[in-house]
Amino acid sequence: MAQRLDPEAIDAALDALNAGAAEDGGAIWQRRGERIERSFRFPDFTSAFGFMAEVALVAERMNHHPEWTNVYGRVDAALTTHDAGGLTRLDFELARAMNAAAGKHL
Amino acid sequence: MAQRLDPEAIDAALDALNAGAAEDGGAIWQRRGERIERSFRFPDFTSAFGFMAEVALVAERMNHHPEWTNVYGRVDAALTTHDAGGLTRLDFELARAMNAAAGKHL
Amino acid sequence: MAQRLDPEAIDAALDALNAGAAEDGGAIWQRRGERIERSFRFPDFTSAFGFMAEVALVAERMNHHPEWTNVYGRVDAALTTHDAGGLTRLDFELARAMNAAAGKHL
Amino acid sequence: MAQRLDPEAIDAALDALNAGAAEDGGAIWQRRGERIERSFRFPDFTSAFGFMAEVALVAERMNHHPEWTNVYGRVDAALTTHDAGGLTRLDFELARAMNAAAGKHL
Repeated sequence: MAQRLDPEAIDAALDALNAGAAEDGGAIWQRRGERIERSFRFPDFTSAFGFMAEVALVAERMNHHPEWTNVYGRVDAALTTHDAGGLTRLDFELARAMNAAAGKHL
Repeated sequence: MAQRLDPEAIDAALDALNAGAAEDGGAIWQRRGERIERSFRFPDFTSAFGFMAEVALVAERMNHHPEWTNVYGRVDAALTTHDAGGLTRLDFELARAMNAAAGKHL
Repeated sequence: MAQRLDPEAIDAALDALNAGAAEDGGAIWQRRGERIERSFRFPDFTSAFGFMAEVALVAERMNHHPEWTNVYGRVDAALTTHDAGGLTRLDFELARAMNAAAGKHL
Repeated sequence: MAQRLDPEAIDAALDALNAGAAEDGGAIWQRRGERIERSFRFPDFTSAFGFMAEVALVAERMNHHPEWTNVYGRVDAALTTHDAGGLTRLDFELARAMNAAAGKHL
């Protein structure tokens, strides 16, 4: 099972994660308690759902699933590892995959 | 454009909608302000996502999309018609389609 | 890596696979050379695609993917294990999952 | 109902369609009888399925569906309009949408 990361490791992982994302304000991952969160905006529902389908496959392969809310072209995601009671490397691995999948549509 | 339904029409549409659903407590559509909401529970993520994929196609065909949150086997949906500022027949049509799609997985 | 099954094992696996499926003529898995094939018929494209989405997740989790052709409500699938040069237990495991997913829509 | 295009209109539509695609050999739309066909290659199954999910939504909205075959990262598509007995503007509209969706993943 993935180990819960300590605060220093989380900060480092979050910095590395966001270094690869566009520094355009809210569109980066932010820590909120034991979760990391990001809001993705797509031009329409088809783009948003294409993104979700791709991420769904990655999540199922990892056996690590997001909590996500979609309305039209917007997808708000929150990641945590319930079994570990906090953030683990799995959350950052899935976040990277989500950034990569989103990047195709933006 | 779909017309906003009056309170009596909403009550009637909600009754008709839930008559076709299992009367098992929380698993029916409920009105909350200008929205109707239902929580769907599936045995796993693959079922939940199969359901979402089918609903996504219906929503795109209708050009009427849900606000929905998914975590693993759970999908919480809320429907409203933004253009009309409230509930319209589109919301009840999409709700019926969601019930039908969910019924396959339950 | 999954081992290629010998002819007796394939026959037994195919019988077990089809015992769980409706014996309605063409709608069962059939062996053709080093592959097993089945044609699925759904009432419409949304059902067919809901099925495909669910199977896609299973396939990605197994890292074992079908060859499949879709047109409207029809999905023709063929399974084999390229790495093993023939049929393995992975093909029968995916076939069972496809039967289960299809059964929801039929 | 969409009208069947005459040969000159098909040639013009095909030229316009492929002008927007990379001229990299087989990766363009080609006419074969009453159909147009293109083979799409993606780096992996998740990209291929993300593409298919997006196209599925467009197809359902148009009520015009492809015949397509997928194996891992490859999607071979053929378009025709059965009701019209040949190629119509719907086929070229769907082909353009497929090019746009594929372009995100390539």
